[in-house]
Amino acid sequence: MSYNTFGHVFRVTTWGESHGPALGCTVDGCPPGVPLEPAMLQHWLDRRKPGQNRFTTQRREPDAVEILSGVFEGVTTGTPIQLMIRNTDQRSKDYGEIAAAFRPGHADITYWQKYGIRDHRGGGRSSARETAARVAAGGVAREVLKALAPGVRITGYMVRMGTMAIDRGRFDLAEVERNPFWTPDAVAAGDWAEYLDGLRKSGNSVGAVIEVVAGGVPPGLGAPVYGKLDSDLASAMMSINAVKGVEIGAGMAAAELTGVENADEIRMGPEGPVFSSNHAGGILGGISTGQDVVVRFAVKPTSSILTPRRTITKGGAETELVTKGRHDPCVGIRAVPVGEAMMACVILDHLLLDRAQTGGVRGRIG
Amino acid sequence: MSYNTFGHVFRVTTWGESHGPALGCTVDGCPPGVPLEPAMLQHWLDRRKPGQNRFTTQRREPDAVEILSGVFEGVTTGTPIQLMIRNTDQRSKDYGEIAAAFRPGHADITYWQKYGIRDHRGGGRSSARETAARVAAGGVAREVLKALAPGVRITGYMVRMGTMAIDRGRFDLAEVERNPFWTPDAVAAGDWAEYLDGLRKSGNSVGAVIEVVAGGVPPGLGAPVYGKLDSDLASAMMSINAVKGVEIGAGMAAAELTGVENADEIRMGPEGPVFSSNHAGGILGGISTGQDVVVRFAVKPTSSILTPRRTITKGGAETELVTKGRHDPCVGIRAVPVGEAMMACVILDHLLLDRAQTGGVRGRIG
Amino acid sequence: MSYNTFGHVFRVTTWGESHGPALGCTVDGCPPGVPLEPAMLQHWLDRRKPGQNRFTTQRREPDAVEILSGVFEGVTTGTPIQLMIRNTDQRSKDYGEIAAAFRPGHADITYWQKYGIRDHRGGGRSSARETAARVAAGGVAREVLKALAPGVRITGYMVRMGTMAIDRGRFDLAEVERNPFWTPDAVAAGDWAEYLDGLRKSGNSVGAVIEVVAGGVPPGLGAPVYGKLDSDLASAMMSINAVKGVEIGAGMAAAELTGVENADEIRMGPEGPVFSSNHAGGILGGISTGQDVVVRFAVKPTSSILTPRRTITKGGAETELVTKGRHDPCVGIRAVPVGEAMMACVILDHLLLDRAQTGGVRGRIG
Amino acid sequence: MSYNTFGHVFRVTTWGESHGPALGCTVDGCPPGVPLEPAMLQHWLDRRKPGQNRFTTQRREPDAVEILSGVFEGVTTGTPIQLMIRNTDQRSKDYGEIAAAFRPGHADITYWQKYGIRDHRGGGRSSARETAARVAAGGVAREVLKALAPGVRITGYMVRMGTMAIDRGRFDLAEVERNPFWTPDAVAAGDWAEYLDGLRKSGNSVGAVIEVVAGGVPPGLGAPVYGKLDSDLASAMMSINAVKGVEIGAGMAAAELTGVENADEIRMGPEGPVFSSNHAGGILGGISTGQDVVVRFAVKPTSSILTPRRTITKGGAETELVTKGRHDPCVGIRAVPVGEAMMACVILDHLLLDRAQTGGVRGRIG
Repeated sequence: MSYNTFGHVFRVTTWGESHGPALGCTVDGCPPGVPLEPAMLQHWLDRRKPGQNRFTTQRREPDAVEILSGVFEGVTTGTPIQLMIRNTDQRSKDYGEIAAAFRPGHADITYWQKYGIRDHRGGGRSSARETAARVAAGGVAREVLKALAPGVRITGYMVRMGTMAIDRGRFDLAEVERNPFWTPDAVAAGDWAEYLDGLRKSGNSVGAVIEVVAGGVPPGLGAPVYGKLDSDLASAMMSINAVKGVEIGAGMAAAELTGVENADEIRMGPEGPVFSSNHAGGILGGISTGQDVVVRFAVKPTSSILTPRRTITKGGAETELVTKGRHDPCVGIRAVPVGEAMMACVILDHLLLDRAQTGGVRGRIG
Repeated sequence: MSYNTFGHVFRVTTWGESHGPALGCTVDGCPPGVPLEPAMLQHWLDRRKPGQNRFTTQRREPDAVEILSGVFEGVTTGTPIQLMIRNTDQRSKDYGEIAAAFRPGHADITYWQKYGIRDHRGGGRSSARETAARVAAGGVAREVLKALAPGVRITGYMVRMGTMAIDRGRFDLAEVERNPFWTPDAVAAGDWAEYLDGLRKSGNSVGAVIEVVAGGVPPGLGAPVYGKLDSDLASAMMSINAVKGVEIGAGMAAAELTGVENADEIRMGPEGPVFSSNHAGGILGGISTGQDVVVRFAVKPTSSILTPRRTITKGGAETELVTKGRHDPCVGIRAVPVGEAMMACVILDHLLLDRAQTGGVRGRIG
Repeated sequence: MSYNTFGHVFRVTTWGESHGPALGCTVDGCPPGVPLEPAMLQHWLDRRKPGQNRFTTQRREPDAVEILSGVFEGVTTGTPIQLMIRNTDQRSKDYGEIAAAFRPGHADITYWQKYGIRDHRGGGRSSARETAARVAAGGVAREVLKALAPGVRITGYMVRMGTMAIDRGRFDLAEVERNPFWTPDAVAAGDWAEYLDGLRKSGNSVGAVIEVVAGGVPPGLGAPVYGKLDSDLASAMMSINAVKGVEIGAGMAAAELTGVENADEIRMGPEGPVFSSNHAGGILGGISTGQDVVVRFAVKPTSSILTPRRTITKGGAETELVTKGRHDPCVGIRAVPVGEAMMACVILDHLLLDRAQTGGVRGRIG
Repeated sequence: MSYNTFGHVFRVTTWGESHGPALGCTVDGCPPGVPLEPAMLQHWLDRRKPGQNRFTTQRREPDAVEILSGVFEGVTTGTPIQLMIRNTDQRSKDYGEIAAAFRPGHADITYWQKYGIRDHRGGGRSSARETAARVAAGGVAREVLKALAPGVRITGYMVRMGTMAIDRGRFDLAEVERNPFWTPDAVAAGDWAEYLDGLRKSGNSVGAVIEVVAGGVPPGLGAPVYGKLDSDLASAMMSINAVKGVEIGAGMAAAELTGVENADEIRMGPEGPVFSSNHAGGILGGISTGQDVVVRFAVKPTSSILTPRRTITKGGAETELVTKGRHDPCVGIRAVPVGEAMMACVILDHLLLDRAQTGGVRGRIG
């Protein structure tokens, strides 16, 4: 089964291929009366847009979003919002060679095996261009959050490129907007630029780890036991192209801790509970605690590289393939705004779900 | 919203609390005509059952499963299968102290904040006892897989306890059944026993990493883009109590690789494509490749420990809490059969979903 | 696919067969903090219970409901509520004859064709006993409505038996509780008793029309365009055994009206809009208007009759069948509390859905 | 909650308003490899298109459908199919008057009450223009059915206009394509033309009953108990604008029959079971029998009429309203292709669902 919808009550259905006329999404279940205009969404799309510096694909796409429905006189109506982004720079000819051979690390072979048909013009449905629709939907979610939970702030940034991680001692959120890697560590940004230039020139690519933090999330979002906030976040992040791992709070490293170390002890602050640490990543039993919700995910290195790799053709012949096209040497860079968008959608969805069941009323402490 | 169902067409709805009369699940969408009897499910429940050795909780639960519906004359009818497990050893008195104070690392505080009411008798709905129902459902999924895709083999084992990982050079699958940690490394099993005894005696606990592998999975399972096989696996594993990270194939380490290193090159074998490596964990573009599907997840250390931790009460008073009760020093051990069960359910669900859309027909290679 | 769940956020999953050990349902998504105890549900189950007078099946079932989860110290916890009803009077031997031949008008033949297996002991999953679980779930919904929308009143009654309809001029709601047919027309009740006695004695049965009205429903419930309140009500009522037609407001007769006749004109009353009539049945564009929500459904005559009917066996042999067992001569009678239960579940589900999207805020008139 | 998706595995999400730039739908879960081009869909859209004769609205819309995704080299790829229809003839000025006052019988008042905002340009999301998207989706479903179940034939026609029903003795399917009412009774077609001309001239409108029949449906489609084929058909038809009642087989009239009359007796034919009659409408226990699936639904008279009706404004002032615009005097006419489209979608969805659970295997008779 094809399954192109995510969310429970704030639901996003994306559609479109990298080399068709357009792609987009339907945002259903959006609260009414929220101010919305294309520029609000374009802001986020521009961050994901390719071709902005030498570290991302040179494909030139304006990624201009059109709102075709669900907004009237500048506010949402509560009915489905259709967002469309036209594809303008589809050089299908770049892909002639891959029509026959399967690119290692790509969905070429699995789409072919599953469907017996494949849009070979650059990934088709499995292209990372699909994530433009997510970013647009995330923009809608951000505007709704602004209206319903104005304290929520969502920020993504890169914490690792290849073998080089940031130094948390140099963490400066303001730095994120100043370098092409969306990293909070200015020194790392310099090192990575040099490193990535080398990789790109040698026809290679590299992976990355992205961290996305949602601050100001009210306690009580998420639900037992298959609609847990962390379970939905894991699903949302793992659905992004090239993601191979998802962590909440301490993540995989939680396995290395003892119970004494891992305990986030609780004290009483002026406005409610405060925690001595945040190994939990803001989520206990699948429900938000009021601390920062912290998610990390690993993006594998771009599979389309200029170094020849061995593969086979549809006919079963063995061959070697160099993927020319125009590709990101570190696809993780552009995954930052995508991760933020997924976080925004999940948080909003759970805010609405919680309102459905509990009416937003909270158990009192103190 | 409470959301206690997972799966698309093979759907499992679990219910019940740790200290109520019973817990269980409804398995809906199960194919008809599959032989099923309680003993087939009991086999898997017995693996998860507490109190089997000194490394798991001393709570004594027979965890005997009853089939209340959906099976007639020894085979499934295609209608909902109700599986019930009675709770027999609920010493609620052990939990008197935690009625007032929130246990750090537990869902106590978030359930209270969300619902304004909490079953304080040992976790209630957030207790790991809920996973018994998953193991029962996974047993059903295994029997159906046996009928529909007899080549599928699902195996889970522990690859890390705290700071100590297995040595893959000593990997021996037969060893898994021989030690209390379900680990394939006999030497590690010995080291861990000593280590865990020490932790337990000092009133501490520790985390773990579990790996679950599904071999023999046909290519073509999973679907773009929010019903990807890896996306559903991430959601399934993250929904297990205490899990903080999920990895597919190379996982978080994929971020450290270059594109040249990460490429799983493809050759033509006698029965179809063969891959030079499996960084992808058997999944490309969300769809199975035919290689082993490899998932790992991290389980945090048990939060209920005998070492006092600082916390607050409902009234907002600051206090210290020692969690007595009967708890696993490494809750990751019993997560092994749970992870296997989730894998079985997800694989079967996607097998049925694929059959819905494609009829199981495959694109031919060679 | 088997699909035994209904509802969007207040979700009910029923399970069980007529001749298994028990049947029941899981109620998920229920708001927390609502007082709930078995007696509140038993009240409604007792109305549906068989064997209460000579016009319903003589099967003797106490239909005692047990709450196995989701309630703690007398209030709902927000986690899944498991309701179980044990089967006690299963005379499977009554059904020996129908093991071989398909009963005309029953699901015997379609279950066999679909599943290749059939629980022949009296209907199995397709038995009207399944509706006991609905009535229990409806009882939960009523208690929640009492807390969230105390003005809502749900009342069902019979308006037609066979060719004999009630006289709306004699409509008296108090009469509903005084006769075995739940009809508001005392004269009709007398006529029907005589009529049904005759049918029963001649080995025949008859159909009925039930009307269910929900008063006090706030405006704004329901949603475009596949989650319309009337669309969900139609689905809910049509899912009840033996129902062959569903009407909202003027229903099928709306086809016979002109636009001038059908218009429910609007005037301004002291508390908001008032309507000159209610052809719409309280729903416009799928959304409640604040008027009474009016649903009617037709129940076909009981198919199990003592008059021989021609049929075939599994082997394809032609034969005649008399259905002995113990059957309702007019199954519509016991459909009254079932229709009420479905109304309660749908209204509550939409109340919660509306709260999710709009927060319950309303556009002001006047 | 807004809810604009229907279907389980063949899922259709519609979007768009009557006076926005475009409307359309996303068809998800479509099997791959099915030939599809715009002309195949246009055929059905042209049947629903307004302005084709004097009995439908004079709004001139080409309703030209564009396929934006999901089709490559003339066949479906298995990924979401986006269908877009541009609005070209939106005379918003016609609607100036209704911006202030609520049109009786319309969703104006309920949208306002629910959302506090309303697209007053002719119905917005609640306009019957939304059904164009359904007809396009139904066209896709028909092509898939042609590939998977070539025996299925879906035909809709009008059987009643106002107080005038067809004479089943004159039933001639060939006649359906020859008159503007899609009715199989040539005499009725003549009578209705005269009748409707009179109503139109007097500023009035009238209701209708549509019957949709699916022949050649294999036995075994549909599922207990909330995914019954009739339950899903009821929901699908009731979701069409202006529909107030839905019937399966004997429908509401089943209430007037005795069990002896209602029994569809079964005999053994050369290719399997044959039935003496079809009161069941081809569905028993929610599952198809192999007989014709027969659905009828009542469409209320168009609410937009030239006869003044009393109403109120947003400000609460009482007024009278004449709805000018360009409206169908009998909106039931154009509901015929819409009903067919919904039937096609539901049958296909259940075909795929059945394939998921049972693999399409059938219990053998004879």
